[in-house]
Amino acid sequence: MTKNENNYCVIMAGGIGSRFWPYSTEKRPKQFLDFFGTGKSLLQMTIDRFRPLVPIENMLVVTNVAYKQMILEQIPDIKENQVLCEPARRNTAPCIAYATAHIRALCLQRAYGWTKDECTKYEGYTKEGSMKGNASLPSYLDIDWKKPEMQANIVVAASDHLILEEEKFREAISKAFAFVSENKAICTLGMQPTRPETGYGYIQYLKPSTVSRQPSESIYPVKTFTEKPNLEMAEVFLKSGDFLWNSGIFIWNLQTISEAFRVYLPEVADKFREGELLMGTDQEEAFIEDIFPKCPNISIDYGIMEKAENVFVLPSSFGWSDLGTWGSLYELSEKSAEGNVSLHSEAHFYDAKGNIVVLEKGKKAIVQGVDDMIIAEQEGRLLVCKRAEEQRIKQFVSEL
Amino acid sequence: MTKNENNYCVIMAGGIGSRFWPYSTEKRPKQFLDFFGTGKSLLQMTIDRFRPLVPIENMLVVTNVAYKQMILEQIPDIKENQVLCEPARRNTAPCIAYATAHIRALCLQRAYGWTKDECTKYEGYTKEGSMKGNASLPSYLDIDWKKPEMQANIVVAASDHLILEEEKFREAISKAFAFVSENKAICTLGMQPTRPETGYGYIQYLKPSTVSRQPSESIYPVKTFTEKPNLEMAEVFLKSGDFLWNSGIFIWNLQTISEAFRVYLPEVADKFREGELLMGTDQEEAFIEDIFPKCPNISIDYGIMEKAENVFVLPSSFGWSDLGTWGSLYELSEKSAEGNVSLHSEAHFYDAKGNIVVLEKGKKAIVQGVDDMIIAEQEGRLLVCKRAEEQRIKQFVSEL
Repeated sequence: MTKNENNYCVIMAGGIGSRFWPYSTEKRPKQFLDFFGTGKSLLQMTIDRFRPLVPIENMLVVTNVAYKQMILEQIPDIKENQVLCEPARRNTAPCIAYATAHIRALCLQRAYGWTKDECTKYEGYTKEGSMKGNASLPSYLDIDWKKPEMQANIVVAASDHLILEEEKFREAISKAFAFVSENKAICTLGMQPTRPETGYGYIQYLKPSTVSRQPSESIYPVKTFTEKPNLEMAEVFLKSGDFLWNSGIFIWNLQTISEAFRVYLPEVADKFREGELLMGTDQEEAFIEDIFPKCPNISIDYGIMEKAENVFVLPSSFGWSDLGTWGSLYELSEKSAEGNVSLHSEAHFYDAKGNIVVLEKGKKAIVQGVDDMIIAEQEGRLLVCKRAEEQRIKQFVSEL
Repeated sequence: MTKNENNYCVIMAGGIGSRFWPYSTEKRPKQFLDFFGTGKSLLQMTIDRFRPLVPIENMLVVTNVAYKQMILEQIPDIKENQVLCEPARRNTAPCIAYATAHIRALCLQRAYGWTKDECTKYEGYTKEGSMKGNASLPSYLDIDWKKPEMQANIVVAASDHLILEEEKFREAISKAFAFVSENKAICTLGMQPTRPETGYGYIQYLKPSTVSRQPSESIYPVKTFTEKPNLEMAEVFLKSGDFLWNSGIFIWNLQTISEAFRVYLPEVADKFREGELLMGTDQEEAFIEDIFPKCPNISIDYGIMEKAENVFVLPSSFGWSDLGTWGSLYELSEKSAEGNVSLHSEAHFYDAKGNIVVLEKGKKAIVQGVDDMIIAEQEGRLLVCKRAEEQRIKQFVSEL
C-alpha cells in the first residue's frame, strides 16, 4: 500500500443535507459537520482517509459552487482548481463524467506536452473523435493509453460516509487500485451486510465456485445491482450470502471509465468531449456552466454499473455506513441502557427509550415519556419525529 | 368604581419560575415574560389592571432582590422604594406581613406627622405595643384607626396570573374595597369553577339561604378552605355549587389585616412590629434583612385565612387562571383542529394532537408522531414531557 502519483480520488460533496434536518441544512450540509464531535468534519475525515494513498494534488472535490469556500476552508492544502463546481444538480453520472474529463485532460496535456495556450485554441473534437482546429494535436482515437502519463487509477467516493476501520479501508482501495490498473475492470466495494438493511442498494456477486475465470483472488464479477429492497427481500438477501451492500465507492482506471462513458452514456460523454481540453484552463468554468445543465439527471449506478459487463466487486468489511439516515446514526452511536442516544449535548431521559437527541453543542434537554423518537435542534429549528417515519422529514422540510 | 388614594395594592412577584421550565427560568421567571405575545409581561399586565383603581404610588411589588432591577425596568413609573425585597423565600404570610407593615408605617407617619428622622430614632415597641425611646409618640395600642390617614384598603394579588375580563375584575375589586372599608372583613375572590380542576384549592361558602346575617348582597361568609382535591373530590365540589376556586386575591383594610396578624400569626407580626417605623426610611432594608429570614415559612391561607372567623368570599367570574401549569396554559390557548397549541413560534404538526409547543420567538418546529406533549425550548434548554406528567418537571430541573 503506497502513495502513487497515478492514484486519483474524486470526492463527491454536493449533497444538500435535507435528510438530517435540522442538524444539517442546505446552508451547512452533513459533509461539513463534525458529526461525532471528533473535531473533524465528515469531509475532512474523508480526505484524510485517502492521504496515505493519493497525493493531495490528485484529489478532486466535486460540489456545488455554494460550498466551494467552505471546502477550501476545511481543506487548506487543496487548491481552488481541485474543487470542481457543478452548476446544477444532475445526480452522480454527470458529476463523475466531469471529474473524469478533468483528470483525462490533465493527463493528455502532460502526455502530449500541450500548453494551456494551445488547449484554449482548440475547437473541440469531431463526432468521430478527431480534433478540430489544430491539426498538430493527435485525434482522440489515437490517444496512446499506454503512455505513463495516461495511467490514472481513480477512486470515487462520497464525502459524507463513515468508515471506522480506516486501515482496512485503505487495504481494500489499494487492492482495487492494483486490480483496475491491470484489468479493464469497473470495481466497486461491496460491504458485507450485518443486518437486513432496507436503506441500501445491494450487489449480488458470483462466488468463486461459480466463476470460470477469476481475475483476482478476492474480487468477483457482479451478477446484479438491486435497488433498496423491502424487509422481506432484505432478509432473503442477508441469508443467501451472495449479496453485499452497495457502498457507492468505485475504483477504475482512466481508460476504462472513459470508454464506459462513451459506450453507455454517450449523451453525457459527448458533452464533456466537446471542450475536453479546456479543463484546467481559465475557460473550464464557462464551458461547464454551458454543458453541465444540459446533461441528463442520471446516477452512475443506473447509467453504467447496471449496464457494463466488466463490473467487479471487492467484498469488504471496515465498519462502513453511508450515514444516510437518522436511523443509521442511531445504530452507530453509543446508547444508554434504555437505548437512548445523546449527541453533542446533555440529555436527561425519564420513561423514555430508543430516542436519539442531537442538539447544538452545550445545550441541555429533558426528555420524558417518549420512545423511539428523533429530537434534533439546530439554529432555531426543532424536529420531533418518530425514528420510523424519518423518510418523511424531507417532505416536512420542503413544506416549511 | 373610582381611583382612591386610600386604595393600595400589593403585587407578589417573587416566584422563581420552575414550573414552566425552560420557558421560564430562575433568571427570568414567568411574571416577567410576555406569555401571550401581547407585548406586555404578566407583571406589566397586572400593574396596568390596577391602575384605574389604585394610584401608582400606592402600589407595592414584593419580590426577590434579584428581580428588583427587572421590575424597575418593566414598570418605569414605579419608584425604587415601592419594590420591597424579601431576603429569603418564606411563602406568602411573611411577604404580606412585610407589605402590611410597610403600608402601616407610611400611614402612621402621615397620621401622626412623624418625620423620617424621628422614626429612625425610635427603639421599637414594647411587648404591650407602647413605643420605646420616644415617649412623645402615641403607643401602638393608642393608634386611632379612624383617622383618615389610617384608612387603607389593600388588595393582594399575584403578579403572574391571567385575567381576561379586566373590567369585570375591577368591578369585583371595587365591590370588595367598599365591603372591607365598611366591615372588619377579610375578603377573597372566589372563582366560579368551570371544570373539576385538581390544580387549585377550593373555597366552600355559605349561600344566602343558610346565612342569617348577610353583610353584603353578593359577598358570603366562607365555610372552609380546602387544599387541591383529587379528581373525584373536584367533581363533587363542582357539582355541589358551594365551592369556588381559591384565586389567592385578597382584599382587606389595614386595621383588619394588622389585627389578624397580631392574633393568628404573632410570631410574624411581632418581628415586623420591632422596627415598624423604620419602614420607608433608609434603615428599612437592614431591618428586613435581619428579621425576614427568621420568619416561619408559612402561607397566608394556612396562617390566617383558614383560622380567621371574619373571612368572606365574593364569587366572581372574569376569565381567571393562575397560569400555574403548562396544562392551564394549554387550556387557555387557541388550538388547532387537532388540539395543538403553538406559542411564539411556528410549529408544523403531522400525526400529532394535543401538544403544546413553546419556542423562542422566530423559531420553527416540525413535530411528528406525538400526542399530548409539552415541547418547550428556550436559551439552549429543551423540554419534551407528557402534559400529564408536568408536575415532575420541577424535580427534573432540580436534577439537571
